[in-house]
Amino acid sequence: MSEATVVADLSERELLARIAARTGTARDALVGIGDDAAILRVAGSVVATTDTLVDGPDFRRAWSSGYDLGWKAAAVNLSDVAAMGARPIALLVALAVPGDVPVVEVESIADGLREACDALAPGCAVAGGDLTHSSVLTIAVTALGDTDGRASVLRSGARAGDVVAIAGEMGVAAHGLDILFGRFADAEGRAQPLTVEGLDALTEAERRAVERQLRPVPPLAQGPLAAEAGVTAMMDVSDGLVLDATRLADASRVTLDLSRDLLGPDPDRALRGGEDHALLATFPAGAVPENFREIGRVTARGALPVTVDGEAPRGPGGWDPYRDWAPLEGD
Amino acid sequence: MSEATVVADLSERELLARIAARTGTARDALVGIGDDAAILRVAGSVVATTDTLVDGPDFRRAWSSGYDLGWKAAAVNLSDVAAMGARPIALLVALAVPGDVPVVEVESIADGLREACDALAPGCAVAGGDLTHSSVLTIAVTALGDTDGRASVLRSGARAGDVVAIAGEMGVAAHGLDILFGRFADAEGRAQPLTVEGLDALTEAERRAVERQLRPVPPLAQGPLAAEAGVTAMMDVSDGLVLDATRLADASRVTLDLSRDLLGPDPDRALRGGEDHALLATFPAGAVPENFREIGRVTARGALPVTVDGEAPRGPGGWDPYRDWAPLEGD
Repeated sequence: MSEATVVADLSERELLARIAARTGTARDALVGIGDDAAILRVAGSVVATTDTLVDGPDFRRAWSSGYDLGWKAAAVNLSDVAAMGARPIALLVALAVPGDVPVVEVESIADGLREACDALAPGCAVAGGDLTHSSVLTIAVTALGDTDGRASVLRSGARAGDVVAIAGEMGVAAHGLDILFGRFADAEGRAQPLTVEGLDALTEAERRAVERQLRPVPPLAQGPLAAEAGVTAMMDVSDGLVLDATRLADASRVTLDLSRDLLGPDPDRALRGGEDHALLATFPAGAVPENFREIGRVTARGALPVTVDGEAPRGPGGWDPYRDWAPLEGD
Repeated sequence: MSEATVVADLSERELLARIAARTGTARDALVGIGDDAAILRVAGSVVATTDTLVDGPDFRRAWSSGYDLGWKAAAVNLSDVAAMGARPIALLVALAVPGDVPVVEVESIADGLREACDALAPGCAVAGGDLTHSSVLTIAVTALGDTDGRASVLRSGARAGDVVAIAGEMGVAAHGLDILFGRFADAEGRAQPLTVEGLDALTEAERRAVERQLRPVPPLAQGPLAAEAGVTAMMDVSDGLVLDATRLADASRVTLDLSRDLLGPDPDRALRGGEDHALLATFPAGAVPENFREIGRVTARGALPVTVDGEAPRGPGGWDPYRDWAPLEGD
């Protein structure tokens, strides 16, 4: 097969076989790829979540390789499982691909899915999926997890007096997106390829921020550990810290007061940045586990769901796909 | 809200609230829509499957209402769970919607999802999902089921001497698709709206065939019953009887010899038609349960995986999305 072979050159069966050869095996899969459905062994209850990445609003093929895309599609879903305090056990992948996409790009998607699972949630792997045709490259991943008998961790359990804490990075992926739009887009905002020269011109911190935007590394293992440590509420920060903290505060009917001094070296990006998939959690005072950092306190519900040093957060708060997405012609 | 309100007029939160108000509640959901992930109670192992419907290759908005689309997306996935001998417990729905789609159409998708669950798999309902923007209306549904401790039913257990049997209809949905392309498409094959006059000109059987194409009614309850009756292999017929029987025969390393006389009034459509989502199963002789009909016998593996009265099946065998899909301009 040449580099130039595209999806339309293969039958569905051939393309599926190429993908299935690369996805690995989920440890708890009693039945994996190849039957009408997968069957997974679970010890506790099943945690299930789905998230879709669409070419355009969610990624640009000029910026994301197939590998990046597979990695990110896995990571964002695995993160939602961890945010319930659960252990990811399997992914199902619904892939809709234009006929002119190179087969090697689809194979790279499978590689990215597998390697994200291996790195972030060992034992988890793709256990099933669906392949169909679309004019827009779209990957919808469902992640399944096992509570292993732990109590589930909801957004609604935060109590006044709890500590607000974070595991993982804040604002790094947002910095990466700013760099992509600033250095790798034309005047109309259309994504341009990530050239070697362009990447070489970045500082090490900038390159790392771009990498984290394209291949997030959420702190998955901290989810079950937080559950065991007595976390009262938890969620992953996917749409922006202020926006997601607002959701947690609303669900718990409390106010989260964040301390600007605790938000790291770039507090503004920390407040609006989301795609790091950090774990935002609340713990009883004194019970914050090792890999979480305090960033604020839970108070009785005030006028605002989220404050920073007691005041309303300034600037844009987060991401809404309908409000914020504008189609870019030719992109 | 007027009939003319479109998706782009609402925030993600508003649109999600409209959908969530219509999806009902899964009986086994410990946590449903609104947190990072759903949590489902299971008694046995978890069955999980995903299938995507894309505007163009998988449906046409001129033919399928939002309700039809929601119904079909639920039904085809529920059918895969039943084909494993399991009981569907929840759906996760990843919906990617163009901004110009009317909100009422999205609400109708939610209605179709709910009513298909209520009619076909009582207790099952949407327990989570994702909403994003795309220029192509795409719905990826994951169905989860519970084996309830029953042995799982694979494609690989058919043995020479078993009876080949079917539950559900054969060729009716394919007849419906022929009618849609024959009566509700222009000379270039572009879908045209289903006018009242056009539908009135159909016979009752033709109208019913169109309905079954748009809103399939797979025999879901027969899946677990077949498992209890000692079924040796089972799958749902989604891509065509010959093609799917070939998959079962290959997985079991046997030949399925079908009897043309047992294929109903329209054997040719029965052989190539798939979208009825009938359950194709093999049982030990004498163990075929009430709602399955014998259509053939399993023999030792011969030269062909599937024969009809001992000979090679004639005509086109089934559907492959890459081989068979041709983009229709303006469609």
